[in-house]
Amino acid sequence: TGVELLRLLARHPNVCVSIATSRQEAGKRVDVLFPSLRGEYSLSFTDPEEADFSVCDAVFFATPNGIAMQQAPELLEKGIRVIDLSADFRIHDIAVWEKWYGMKHACPEIVSQAVYGLPEWNADVIKTARLVANPGCYPTAVSLPLLPLLKEGCLKSEIPLIADCKSGTSGGGRTAAVRNLLCEAGDNFQAYGVGGHRHLPEIQQTLSAFNQDIAKSLVFVPHLLPMIRGMQATLYFECVDKDLSIQSLLEDFYADSAFVDVLSDCKQPPQTRSVRGTNICRIAVQKAPGCNSWIVLSVIDNLVKGAAGQAVQNMNLMFGFPETLGLDIVPLLP
Amino acid sequence: TGVELLRLLARHPNVCVSIATSRQEAGKRVDVLFPSLRGEYSLSFTDPEEADFSVCDAVFFATPNGIAMQQAPELLEKGIRVIDLSADFRIHDIAVWEKWYGMKHACPEIVSQAVYGLPEWNADVIKTARLVANPGCYPTAVSLPLLPLLKEGCLKSEIPLIADCKSGTSGGGRTAAVRNLLCEAGDNFQAYGVGGHRHLPEIQQTLSAFNQDIAKSLVFVPHLLPMIRGMQATLYFECVDKDLSIQSLLEDFYADSAFVDVLSDCKQPPQTRSVRGTNICRIAVQKAPGCNSWIVLSVIDNLVKGAAGQAVQNMNLMFGFPETLGLDIVPLLP
Amino acid sequence: TGVELLRLLARHPNVCVSIATSRQEAGKRVDVLFPSLRGEYSLSFTDPEEADFSVCDAVFFATPNGIAMQQAPELLEKGIRVIDLSADFRIHDIAVWEKWYGMKHACPEIVSQAVYGLPEWNADVIKTARLVANPGCYPTAVSLPLLPLLKEGCLKSEIPLIADCKSGTSGGGRTAAVRNLLCEAGDNFQAYGVGGHRHLPEIQQTLSAFNQDIAKSLVFVPHLLPMIRGMQATLYFECVDKDLSIQSLLEDFYADSAFVDVLSDCKQPPQTRSVRGTNICRIAVQKAPGCNSWIVLSVIDNLVKGAAGQAVQNMNLMFGFPETLGLDIVPLLP
Amino acid sequence: TGVELLRLLARHPNVCVSIATSRQEAGKRVDVLFPSLRGEYSLSFTDPEEADFSVCDAVFFATPNGIAMQQAPELLEKGIRVIDLSADFRIHDIAVWEKWYGMKHACPEIVSQAVYGLPEWNADVIKTARLVANPGCYPTAVSLPLLPLLKEGCLKSEIPLIADCKSGTSGGGRTAAVRNLLCEAGDNFQAYGVGGHRHLPEIQQTLSAFNQDIAKSLVFVPHLLPMIRGMQATLYFECVDKDLSIQSLLEDFYADSAFVDVLSDCKQPPQTRSVRGTNICRIAVQKAPGCNSWIVLSVIDNLVKGAAGQAVQNMNLMFGFPETLGLDIVPLLP
Repeated sequence: TGVELLRLLARHPNVCVSIATSRQEAGKRVDVLFPSLRGEYSLSFTDPEEADFSVCDAVFFATPNGIAMQQAPELLEKGIRVIDLSADFRIHDIAVWEKWYGMKHACPEIVSQAVYGLPEWNADVIKTARLVANPGCYPTAVSLPLLPLLKEGCLKSEIPLIADCKSGTSGGGRTAAVRNLLCEAGDNFQAYGVGGHRHLPEIQQTLSAFNQDIAKSLVFVPHLLPMIRGMQATLYFECVDKDLSIQSLLEDFYADSAFVDVLSDCKQPPQTRSVRGTNICRIAVQKAPGCNSWIVLSVIDNLVKGAAGQAVQNMNLMFGFPETLGLDIVPLLP
Repeated sequence: TGVELLRLLARHPNVCVSIATSRQEAGKRVDVLFPSLRGEYSLSFTDPEEADFSVCDAVFFATPNGIAMQQAPELLEKGIRVIDLSADFRIHDIAVWEKWYGMKHACPEIVSQAVYGLPEWNADVIKTARLVANPGCYPTAVSLPLLPLLKEGCLKSEIPLIADCKSGTSGGGRTAAVRNLLCEAGDNFQAYGVGGHRHLPEIQQTLSAFNQDIAKSLVFVPHLLPMIRGMQATLYFECVDKDLSIQSLLEDFYADSAFVDVLSDCKQPPQTRSVRGTNICRIAVQKAPGCNSWIVLSVIDNLVKGAAGQAVQNMNLMFGFPETLGLDIVPLLP
Repeated sequence: TGVELLRLLARHPNVCVSIATSRQEAGKRVDVLFPSLRGEYSLSFTDPEEADFSVCDAVFFATPNGIAMQQAPELLEKGIRVIDLSADFRIHDIAVWEKWYGMKHACPEIVSQAVYGLPEWNADVIKTARLVANPGCYPTAVSLPLLPLLKEGCLKSEIPLIADCKSGTSGGGRTAAVRNLLCEAGDNFQAYGVGGHRHLPEIQQTLSAFNQDIAKSLVFVPHLLPMIRGMQATLYFECVDKDLSIQSLLEDFYADSAFVDVLSDCKQPPQTRSVRGTNICRIAVQKAPGCNSWIVLSVIDNLVKGAAGQAVQNMNLMFGFPETLGLDIVPLLP
Repeated sequence: TGVELLRLLARHPNVCVSIATSRQEAGKRVDVLFPSLRGEYSLSFTDPEEADFSVCDAVFFATPNGIAMQQAPELLEKGIRVIDLSADFRIHDIAVWEKWYGMKHACPEIVSQAVYGLPEWNADVIKTARLVANPGCYPTAVSLPLLPLLKEGCLKSEIPLIADCKSGTSGGGRTAAVRNLLCEAGDNFQAYGVGGHRHLPEIQQTLSAFNQDIAKSLVFVPHLLPMIRGMQATLYFECVDKDLSIQSLLEDFYADSAFVDVLSDCKQPPQTRSVRGTNICRIAVQKAPGCNSWIVLSVIDNLVKGAAGQAVQNMNLMFGFPETLGLDIVPLLP
């Protein structure tokens, strides 16, 4: 996520990256660690302890969970705005957060100030937010197609809402985990976190804004794809009104949205690569043949709309820039 | 599927492959087309028109749909047993078959003689069958975990049965389709056949043996994985009896089954690679956290248990060989 | 190559794509064939027979070999400048071209007018060229590091010059060839064209500008990598002067080059992904341990610097635009 | 390597695996760590400190470098034969070993007793060996095609011998290294160890048996392939006698070899997948077009002929079993 943020910010006309911190890589040039950034940055990593953020208008946290909550309060006090790509400020219910993340929260009093950074839904509050909790990748892919339907009260609450999700391995970060080795994850497919995944309470919290019962009935199973970038949510549900066109409802809802693209049909289902490297969420809708279920497909690039791109989109809103600034990229295909 | 069949038969102690046909490759040595078979076969491909099958006890069809139905009747008349890996004899309802496969059936009268070759369920009739319709890959992965539950009447019929399925690209065969190019399917994920896939009526027919309503409510969405071999079905449903342990039900049911392996829990969900190259179907069961849904995961190697291996298993039964003969292979991992 | 050109041109500030031709896809919207271009183009493909190029200042040919030579003469006569990404105008010796490409050349008289579009070497003539032959991908990766050394007379002519090259499968285009299926090319590696590849005479022609004997001694073996984009040339040779620093020679030569990046050492050898999606050629140099051979590594994105990107770079020069216009992209990593 | 050894030994008719050690996984069942082995082993890992090897006829070391040299002496003293898949006993020159492996050798006096386990060359001494040093993967792929040529004095010593080698990431083992993550190694290609790799002195030692000068002139560059299994060596050299047919020389030399397969020409160059999962080394030969260089291609499965399979082949020889016992596997393709 860090390198992806640096990729996007390198071409953002209104941004100058003045500090990049890393305890482990302190002193090393950014473009030595990430040769793709050669010629883009002359910066070296600073030890976070020694970094002077007073020159910054905003700080992004692309850190493991548990770091931002230690450092954000001081930055906020200094008037520096914070965009946290980790999970530290996403869950309002501290007890729930502590249960799923297995640690004590360092600044529960600040969590309530955090704005959940899903710009298609919270643009107004994001604009004035001092602290934005950037959504998780699965929650983004799942919530964007569901929220309009829940808002309109379309979903039948007696039928479980299923979110069968699949993610490329870049979701696991650059940490050297055996599970994410090419020899382990390559030419292989498997579910994980079937008994419970941290993004479940986050999605449930988001959906609860409109319907708590349906949020509770959510079944969420993440799977690991043998590829680098890309995420798909395949959603299954029934509607209260059998004759409702959720196609036009979604199309209308996102008609003016720069980054949500509703396909006109499902003959060519959305491909994850069709959004590779970009901040787009592409959605398609299909009535299941011979029954009342609906199938909704939603694809994003987990590192962009699911992380760094959405963070930049949030920053754009926070600083009054055009929402698409620095994010107007054509997907890399093939 | 053809090369996979030849791989398995090369080590089957009771089999001698005397003819391999191919219109396109007639005259070419089998091991020139498939260098992995060098040293295994000295055979060359024969034009099917010129092949004399009278030396054969059995003929496998690893052909595109529509071929076996042309040639099987003559073979059966000569007393040669037929195992068809294509879809020609899988669907009993000819009208349904013709609708989904887009052609007129050449020998509808023979379809009713065909035995559906799912050995864990039809072993007795397979033993004496003259014509076996080898199941599709998705139907195998979906039906094996569901049939015991349907037989016992466990599933709640008011809740849709969801089968979210994922397959490696080898399911598409060796045909040069743009969709299956490494540059198209690699580092990419997408659904396909969302509005209706040929395996839907096949699965519905199988499930209908126990419950027609649930069969009709089936939602089946196949997806294409950026990998070679391997298939997973992720199944979602609710049970009539909330306290039922479908774990022990499945374990008991398949306790003596050589090729169905029910994991004792879902902490390490089954990986497709854990069955790579073998005839095993590995199943795991998980109650969805916080709600009444069940999640069942089922993995197979689509080319083995989903095709060539199951065909050999059927052949073993038909000829009175031990069911596992020639199929006792350790998965290739990594 | 076509879709890559459209990706780059979509963001080129001085370019408006007014026609995209395709016999096969005529009438279909460009963004239906390539969903990654949704929102970028409202254009549909035109049948080449019916296209009116009179509105165009330049025409790119991203066509199979043998097409451009049919159509270029008419365009050139109308004063439209042509950039041919195919091989039709790369080889000056018509007999050599006809031997390697297996067809009669349609306009040998125009070949001599064509400028070989390697901008780092031919910028001056490209600027005024009416017809640019865009180099092949292998020739680009091999020639860029070798030309400065040959120009300076560094290479020992008694020692063979070895170019062991590796390419992702996108080099094979979007044609549905069995060899490029994910199931064939995935998790696999092999050489091809070992007995002779069409890029051999092209590289030899380029190197011959400085040393015909060394050009003749070139051993070129291409290999197919199980990946999408990316190409590496690993070059082996000896130098006349054992004490020469080819490191500084290459660094100096390309010091002002926007798209050739010479690494300061080989401790972190260049990765193909470090140039993914960009027009950069990244080079590293290493003296072989314990002997007199040199090892030079050169990586490009075969679809960008090896094709569409270099074509845009050529167009920039031809029209007096800054060389990097529309090509100032940060590599997508991971 | 460990899991691969267990895969092969599971089907070896003359072997019973009685102990599997692992400090980290002690107490865990082998088939819990490696689900592909479910049903094959009921064994749990033993802490090496607590293992009683007195029941064993042979012990395999599939351990990191530096472990076998600690434990082998005691085993040998007890009369247990040792096959070491690590590098501890491969290099006779202790100083060279210590330089490349960066540690002090624990039992230099035993190194001289170790037999280099390349069965095609050392079968006689392997048969009676108490300690076999199983060759590295690159040395196996490089040495098998070169040794017959060196033995016959074919190679021109004034021309450098180039070994451009490529390996799947499984060569890096199951260690969680960032470099081998799917996100790092996937869709990427790069050289590594260009300034010197540990297998260089091993190959040089092997080749030195016939020609020290040529061994010294060897240029060896390993590259990392974005795939799991498979290794290719592409070799370049010139011959003293221009008219020599090295094709027939290699064919003759390996005519009776069970595991070395010389292709009759190079029209279909060997594919790494054509030996996947097997102990075969497949070789092809091509005269470079237009010059005097030869190109030799050699592919192996780095985990089988490059490690575990060769170890079993050595064990077969040591215990008087048929050389191919337990190794008679058909490659898994695709």
